[in-house]
Amino acid sequence: MAKYKMILDLDTGIDDALAIAYALATPKADLIGIIGSYGNVVTSRGVQNSLDLLELLGHPEVPVYMGAKHSSTTDHFDVMPVSAQIHGVNGVGEVELKKADQQVATEDGVDFLISAAHKYQKDLLLVPTGPLTNLAAALDKDPEIADLIGSVSLMGGALTVPGNVTPVTEANINQDPKAADRVFRSSLPLTMVGLDVTTRTLLTIKETQQWRDLGTTAGQKYADIVDFYIDAYKVTSPHLGGCALHDPLAVAVAVEPDLVSTIFLNMKVDTKAPFAGRTIGDETRINEPATQTQVAVNVDKDRFVSEFMTKLTDLFKNN
Amino acid sequence: MAKYKMILDLDTGIDDALAIAYALATPKADLIGIIGSYGNVVTSRGVQNSLDLLELLGHPEVPVYMGAKHSSTTDHFDVMPVSAQIHGVNGVGEVELKKADQQVATEDGVDFLISAAHKYQKDLLLVPTGPLTNLAAALDKDPEIADLIGSVSLMGGALTVPGNVTPVTEANINQDPKAADRVFRSSLPLTMVGLDVTTRTLLTIKETQQWRDLGTTAGQKYADIVDFYIDAYKVTSPHLGGCALHDPLAVAVAVEPDLVSTIFLNMKVDTKAPFAGRTIGDETRINEPATQTQVAVNVDKDRFVSEFMTKLTDLFKNN
Repeated sequence: MAKYKMILDLDTGIDDALAIAYALATPKADLIGIIGSYGNVVTSRGVQNSLDLLELLGHPEVPVYMGAKHSSTTDHFDVMPVSAQIHGVNGVGEVELKKADQQVATEDGVDFLISAAHKYQKDLLLVPTGPLTNLAAALDKDPEIADLIGSVSLMGGALTVPGNVTPVTEANINQDPKAADRVFRSSLPLTMVGLDVTTRTLLTIKETQQWRDLGTTAGQKYADIVDFYIDAYKVTSPHLGGCALHDPLAVAVAVEPDLVSTIFLNMKVDTKAPFAGRTIGDETRINEPATQTQVAVNVDKDRFVSEFMTKLTDLFKNN
Repeated sequence: MAKYKMILDLDTGIDDALAIAYALATPKADLIGIIGSYGNVVTSRGVQNSLDLLELLGHPEVPVYMGAKHSSTTDHFDVMPVSAQIHGVNGVGEVELKKADQQVATEDGVDFLISAAHKYQKDLLLVPTGPLTNLAAALDKDPEIADLIGSVSLMGGALTVPGNVTPVTEANINQDPKAADRVFRSSLPLTMVGLDVTTRTLLTIKETQQWRDLGTTAGQKYADIVDFYIDAYKVTSPHLGGCALHDPLAVAVAVEPDLVSTIFLNMKVDTKAPFAGRTIGDETRINEPATQTQVAVNVDKDRFVSEFMTKLTDLFKNN
């Protein structure tokens, strides 16, 4: 049994689907639960996708919890058209998955996170790859968890490159800048895995073909799902030459922090237009030592993509 | 005689005055000329300040050249009220300096830069601490200089922290975003010394008192000038607890690059409102190796301030 326990907080989504696979495939942490969030899809859809993918990957025992259905500053959420364009209306590239036997857990996702933080403390790795609404709610409900959790490796934000929703805003942070600001200003041991690094780790149809060639259901389905994503990237980000491995990189950094180089910086999130959602150093804390917040600014892309392919191909081989 | 030749490109200004002193005080480079620019003051005022300060510091032989009087996209320049607030209407904290005997050089600043680039090549260190209008004009007139000049250490921009003119824009870059974009996209070996690091290197009246105590004219005048700047910072940037040593840090980095830690990043400058003047990684070149452009993201502040005080105090002792 691995030393670390991992919780994913997902708006499942295509790269979230890859994050689930990476989390199941790494021997360095046990995936003890997935919390649902809104973003790429509505929360209920994302939760169902997580359940279906876990079953597809042979791990129906991992519990999936319901989380926030909208941001901390709104009372409703609609999927952005660009999200449906990138992830498909169903969140998994319009690929049909067998509906899982397993149901969503009865415990609320935020409560699950809080109790896991107390139970596992420094052994708990949290990987949010959607809006930070659930984590901010947990901090509000039990501020003590900020000093309990072992590490938070979050996919979101953009420090040294432009955003992907506006010139200053990355999609996850954009959903709930206020919650993100709460998280970044907390004492959580945080690593921001943002567009700075995730747009450097790319997948192409050359790699998905290897999964297809396995002849397994998981290999086939994941190849179909990711090919949809690669096609969408040709339209939305043609300069990249592949699809960005946003969410799985955050999972990988949680268990192998040395995949990225980071800078320590006290961060904040702007909450006012036209800069709302920008993740940036807090100029009022520039001369306070930054000890809790790191931002990934470079990545060993070859090593990551190689480990990613090895792990996922092994997982898909048997499912 | 030092190996390196240094050219400063200044809108002289209080921290520019400190940059001149640092450049004269470092044994690692010979200051072979100052090019004037607009910014903290109008160009003619900055040029006169440079001449007067060089004489005050015992180096009237250093030539001062006239440069751009306004940005590459305007035909006029007015000093911003905040510039006068920080530097004084005369640019040197309303302190009266003896008018230099020396006159401005007859050769144009841009032509001087181009000929120096050809003459000294890799031994030439260029330190622009104002708008990048002169350097962009030189690149337009003779693109070859991009591959000749040894290094450019520029004070300007903000990558990991907000700007000081708008939330995204630093003052020097704000004056001429188009020129800055030209410079950042060139093949010049560039180190951006921006607010990321300069707001971490601070001076207080404790230090200026040491200069005052020297009993020399230079010590007294520089103490008066910088005290004006420290007082202004109490109003404009009370969170810092001192005045930022923007321009002298860029000079120091030119001769001692290991004072800062940097990241290599292909950069661009936004030119459209509301993001005009933002210095940011170029997402279209994120997967091209960055070899020419570095951004300073941290600084050994204690070492710099200590070297700064030693060098300037020695210089002021004899003048």
